[in-house]
Amino acid sequence: MTSPSHVNVSLGERSYDIVIGSGLLGRLGDQLATHVANSHVVVFTDSNVGPIYLEPVVKQLETVAAKVSTITVAAGETSKSVSICDGLWQQMIELGADRRTIVIALGGGVVGDLAGFVAASFTRGLNFIQIPTTLLAQVDSSVGGKVGINLPQAKNMVGAFWQPQTVVIDIDVLKSLPDREFAAGMAEVIKYGVIMDASFFDWLESRTEKILARDPEFLTELIATCCQCKAKVVEEDEKETSGRRAILNYGHTFGHAVESVFGYGNFLHGEAISIGMVAAARMAKKLAMVDQDFCDRQLAIFEAVSLPVNCPPGNESQLVAAMKHYKKVALGKLRFVLPTKFGEVVLVDAPDDDMIGQCYLSDLES
Amino acid sequence: MTSPSHVNVSLGERSYDIVIGSGLLGRLGDQLATHVANSHVVVFTDSNVGPIYLEPVVKQLETVAAKVSTITVAAGETSKSVSICDGLWQQMIELGADRRTIVIALGGGVVGDLAGFVAASFTRGLNFIQIPTTLLAQVDSSVGGKVGINLPQAKNMVGAFWQPQTVVIDIDVLKSLPDREFAAGMAEVIKYGVIMDASFFDWLESRTEKILARDPEFLTELIATCCQCKAKVVEEDEKETSGRRAILNYGHTFGHAVESVFGYGNFLHGEAISIGMVAAARMAKKLAMVDQDFCDRQLAIFEAVSLPVNCPPGNESQLVAAMKHYKKVALGKLRFVLPTKFGEVVLVDAPDDDMIGQCYLSDLES
Repeated sequence: MTSPSHVNVSLGERSYDIVIGSGLLGRLGDQLATHVANSHVVVFTDSNVGPIYLEPVVKQLETVAAKVSTITVAAGETSKSVSICDGLWQQMIELGADRRTIVIALGGGVVGDLAGFVAASFTRGLNFIQIPTTLLAQVDSSVGGKVGINLPQAKNMVGAFWQPQTVVIDIDVLKSLPDREFAAGMAEVIKYGVIMDASFFDWLESRTEKILARDPEFLTELIATCCQCKAKVVEEDEKETSGRRAILNYGHTFGHAVESVFGYGNFLHGEAISIGMVAAARMAKKLAMVDQDFCDRQLAIFEAVSLPVNCPPGNESQLVAAMKHYKKVALGKLRFVLPTKFGEVVLVDAPDDDMIGQCYLSDLES
Repeated sequence: MTSPSHVNVSLGERSYDIVIGSGLLGRLGDQLATHVANSHVVVFTDSNVGPIYLEPVVKQLETVAAKVSTITVAAGETSKSVSICDGLWQQMIELGADRRTIVIALGGGVVGDLAGFVAASFTRGLNFIQIPTTLLAQVDSSVGGKVGINLPQAKNMVGAFWQPQTVVIDIDVLKSLPDREFAAGMAEVIKYGVIMDASFFDWLESRTEKILARDPEFLTELIATCCQCKAKVVEEDEKETSGRRAILNYGHTFGHAVESVFGYGNFLHGEAISIGMVAAARMAKKLAMVDQDFCDRQLAIFEAVSLPVNCPPGNESQLVAAMKHYKKVALGKLRFVLPTKFGEVVLVDAPDDDMIGQCYLSDLES
């Protein structure tokens, strides 16, 4: 067993370590001893992850914590609602949680966002630890402190910037991850290469077979690099005030519209983002910001890891309408994060609607 | 018109000014120009305060803000619920609020707590301004950043530490405050004298007639002193981690039990706290921490401003049970903030239940 990698997120008094490696869940007690010793810990998980990992995690925590409680929510985005959250707050009281209680999120992005918002708000804020169990959560949502729930009108409208005390990433959990979920996580992995680290893109491009083989040592390096990228952006713009953090939204404006038009059940988030990044590259090409080779290389790596790169044609005007509606309720102005070369993106104001819609179409279709 | 007093709350990047004076609402546009210029502002108020102050406040804000929206909630503690808050989040979306929107709380403690929590959580946090319209909110709840809502099991269980950008205290609004509400606010005013500023206690003690006359210049000085006291405690312990902030809970353990047993409608918060501080002084006397003269002087000033000092006898065991239940769900250990002399309090572990109950009884009753 190789020793784990550590990535520090440097945010002054809110700094923390991300620990990445193999076999970490099996020695979680040692791993978290300084954080949970003699405390009451509440572990949040969901109906997919719970049956596999909750029991061993609780067993490990019981070796160091004073009391370990558990809360399991239904798997899926619908759990990130106000009414579910209300129930969780009340469950916290019933479990005897107080302001010294520590919340642990064991699961993917939904569990992290939801448990994180309960942690941020219960008795005005509890300490919080992330144990992400999907590739997507490991490289993206568990790092950076964004937590929250959805309103019927839009996702993540209620939340906080609430940094964890630590993030424990056991790459062994990826062994049991379905292929489709693993590929979805790869969309965000590849994103870091495109937006800020050209050599990482090159490294990934020449190793697609290793990616698909999910070799633990290789994945440790891959995830650590992603966490370093994310940490760098978050350190520069913790609370999304300078605009720097917006680069992480590469492909997301196009992608959110795909999720919304085709339904959240039809495309996983990472799949929609893959389609969105392909569309964003096409827009950059149309604006003469990148060449065809850029688009081809990006498309090829998505295809190599079995990610979808197009959504069914004929829905362009609906997609543009969804995009505009989403921006209207969520953020104001419609802008796009577009590449200028591998490792660099810029913010661009929206071109006309027709042009935006065209970006969803492959060269064969348009 | 005298120039307003300024009290700075020094919290690093979260520092802000409290402005206290006469006629501030009438020039609110100027007063808030740097904070709201060209922004979308949402003013929260309640059904008591709205009919009196909302229109002039909106008119003033419209001279500087780009857009002014308003939200009025029903007056009273029941508005601090999860379901009301859910409705407010959705209303924010309908009003076109985004992450640059500024929330203004125009009202007493309920409006400040509720609007503050909406500000802390909507799109992960909005800028926030407090315009407190009760004496209680002016000297206590509007300063220090505690915002939140209630769960059925206990008050303020969900919330945040969310500091405002500024607090504007127009003492003219106190003219229209009912006598009973004014007296309730005086309980928290007197509290500062007892817990941390003996000379302020002396100053108040010799000026009870001036208090009752509500002279604007006198009230400006009184409120500024209270805000300075509160700011000092908050600066030392912003997020209630060192224990220092606990001194502000003097009288509150006894007082919360009074509110809970007799119903929140029967005693105003300040009235319950008056009764609670009298009980806490009796406990300190029983523990030989203060003498009878201390108790008499404290009692006399509460009576001089027409605050209740006792609740109906015969409910002692119920009160102690309520206190223990509240501590169980909210805070863990039952402890009391007790005076050692004017200007100084210490934390004391709970004595036996009988003794606690006895503290609610006047010498005539016990």
